Amino acid sequence: MDQTVIAPAPVVEHERAHFPEGLTLDCGMTLAPVEIAYRTYGTLSEARDNAILICHALTGDQYVAETHPVTGRRGWWERMVGPGRPIDTDRFFVICSNVLGGCMGSTGPRSPRGASDAEPWGTEFPPITIRDMVRAQHALVRSLGIEHLFAVVGGSMGGMQVLEWATTYPEMVKAAMPIATSAFHSAQNIAFNEVSRQAIFADPDWHGGRYWEAGVIPARGLAVARMMAHITYLSEDALTRKFGRRVRKSDGTPNQPCSGGSLSMFGEIFEVESYLRHQGSSFVRRFDANSYLTITRAMDWMDIAAESDGDLADAFAGTRTRFCVVSFSSDWLFPTSQSRTLVRALMRAGANVSSVEIETDKGHDAFLLDEPDFDRTVRGFLSGVAEHADLPARVRGGAG
Amino acid sequence: MDQTVIAPAPVVEHERAHFPEGLTLDCGMTLAPVEIAYRTYGTLSEARDNAILICHALTGDQYVAETHPVTGRRGWWERMVGPGRPIDTDRFFVICSNVLGGCMGSTGPRSPRGASDAEPWGTEFPPITIRDMVRAQHALVRSLGIEHLFAVVGGSMGGMQVLEWATTYPEMVKAAMPIATSAFHSAQNIAFNEVSRQAIFADPDWHGGRYWEAGVIPARGLAVARMMAHITYLSEDALTRKFGRRVRKSDGTPNQPCSGGSLSMFGEIFEVESYLRHQGSSFVRRFDANSYLTITRAMDWMDIAAESDGDLADAFAGTRTRFCVVSFSSDWLFPTSQSRTLVRALMRAGANVSSVEIETDKGHDAFLLDEPDFDRTVRGFLSGVAEHADLPARVRGGAG
Repeated sequence: MDQTVIAPAPVVEHERAHFPEGLTLDCGMTLAPVEIAYRTYGTLSEARDNAILICHALTGDQYVAETHPVTGRRGWWERMVGPGRPIDTDRFFVICSNVLGGCMGSTGPRSPRGASDAEPWGTEFPPITIRDMVRAQHALVRSLGIEHLFAVVGGSMGGMQVLEWATTYPEMVKAAMPIATSAFHSAQNIAFNEVSRQAIFADPDWHGGRYWEAGVIPARGLAVARMMAHITYLSEDALTRKFGRRVRKSDGTPNQPCSGGSLSMFGEIFEVESYLRHQGSSFVRRFDANSYLTITRAMDWMDIAAESDGDLADAFAGTRTRFCVVSFSSDWLFPTSQSRTLVRALMRAGANVSSVEIETDKGHDAFLLDEPDFDRTVRGFLSGVAEHADLPARVRGGAG
Repeated sequence: MDQTVIAPAPVVEHERAHFPEGLTLDCGMTLAPVEIAYRTYGTLSEARDNAILICHALTGDQYVAETHPVTGRRGWWERMVGPGRPIDTDRFFVICSNVLGGCMGSTGPRSPRGASDAEPWGTEFPPITIRDMVRAQHALVRSLGIEHLFAVVGGSMGGMQVLEWATTYPEMVKAAMPIATSAFHSAQNIAFNEVSRQAIFADPDWHGGRYWEAGVIPARGLAVARMMAHITYLSEDALTRKFGRRVRKSDGTPNQPCSGGSLSMFGEIFEVESYLRHQGSSFVRRFDANSYLTITRAMDWMDIAAESDGDLADAFAGTRTRFCVVSFSSDWLFPTSQSRTLVRALMRAGANVSSVEIETDKGHDAFLLDEPDFDRTVRGFLSGVAEHADLPARVRGGAG
């Protein structure tokens, strides 16, 4: 069968922090060297007390609030982060780094194994955890001369990192905003991730993970993985509202990762099919399959309670961090019930915690979309924390 | 990469009805010859008024209440159908046929194209609809000398067939029991099916649908499709109850359709991963990929309202059939909201309709599982219809 040849992504020089001594991982191995690619927005105050770390989701990256250098699309959270936005870069110094194990400049399976001319790690990249990602962010934050974070904010897998920050470095985190997330990955979450992985393994261009040797990428399998995941990011209502049962002419282009033109009925396909194929095809141009495997495994092993012998409240014992836990009513991937479990544990731990379920039909992806109630929640929480903190008026948002 | 060689299924001689003149399909083509494989249980009454047609779901078949000749497992609805069971074969004559387009003896993509020594239809098998499946069942029922069905019963895609029976041959159907189903396939339903199809297309052993020429089957892609579909058949609660986050040693067997042993953490995988891999691996031994494509497409095009210009009530206008619409509270693939839409349309059409939502955490598959409330519903509905019908006491269940 024809191999799917995808145009290579443009070579991008990412801004990076270098850690030659590396990191000791949860698996026991020391990964060295480690590089963490990151972006910052706004200005760090002289007191270094206005930094907000934003943690990205599974397929996100550090390009939060600017045009993405590979896709040319706007930053994934531009509507939330920027001057005058809910996370206001006129007040806060915003940091976002590509996760350890990622493929947008941070050390991951595509990185050379040791010397810069070595072959990539590929599937031999060590297994990493969400806590390992946070350890790498911690090294970055400290290298920027920051000892305390005003807030750590993130949705989905980003929210998992927020929780790991709050339990691993509690004294560094003034405020934590875990959004559309959970303190553990459920059996259903794991199940979907496992199907994603099997789709990649089933691709003829997978080559046991050494696809670079053949000059190909497992584009079809990765596209299937993305298509399936994308369904879980939307609600049934959102899919119905966006596509319903509308049909369009089948383009039947057979050389794309997602084709299946042969399965049209009367020469037509459903718009939702066409949309998903596009989601799959465009994704494989920017994401590495081995990173997808590494990061989904890290999510699956996420279980904060297990890290403290089974009681989630113990993980947060003595915390002085202020928490705001956000969920979305139509999110069935990380449903509100999981946020409630987290909130109950935080209450048992005596934490300062507020929580809100935003009413929306947009599903899990609502945290990335236009949700005015959510915007107000983010803005209000950060303002509230600033008012109660010993911050200068510039950061509190007052005059002068 | 290694091809996945699967032991061929044992050759089984299915009981079949032959229709040399074939069927004219919704696509306009006449498919000939047509063979429909079927099984019956119980005895047809002299008045020929006690026949119940059971319609199977996507991957089901005609072996309802006896050991399956290929898998050796018990019939898929043995707990529901048999002597003294809710669908009581001491009272009723039960018929179940393998759907048109299937792979358990009825004409489908694996059937020879014309003469018995011709090559298989493969992807050139004509597109069929749920109504085409029902047309084939109608031919079978008439060939058995039956002019009226006491009831048509089915879950999931089987329920779609029930609805097509009630709208296409209303005068033949005394009672209809659509279970965990819908009068149309939703955008989310279509989306999941499309991912299944792309998984099959992505398999190196797919060979454009002519896999038999290479002596292989697209086992990996089909397994991925089945794994994903299987998640949609269960609820999040059921997956949590059955597996939670329990782990087991990775077996790491690389020659199965689902392997991924390389992605264990500390040599362990989650039990839910192992379970899904088993679901995928065992499925490919009994199901044909081209049938999977044909049948999922038929489901996607199901839209009874569209067949009557958009108003679902019109499709049932003047019906004298008694309906019992059943849904399950934790079924998110065919949620109760879709059953309610159907019930409202039936009410508008003036139909005799009762409906029930069974409380369960078992998800969509609940109709196949141990649900005493559901059993009582089936038994009660059939008894009620028999009491109001002009049937002899033997069928009504009374003495004498």
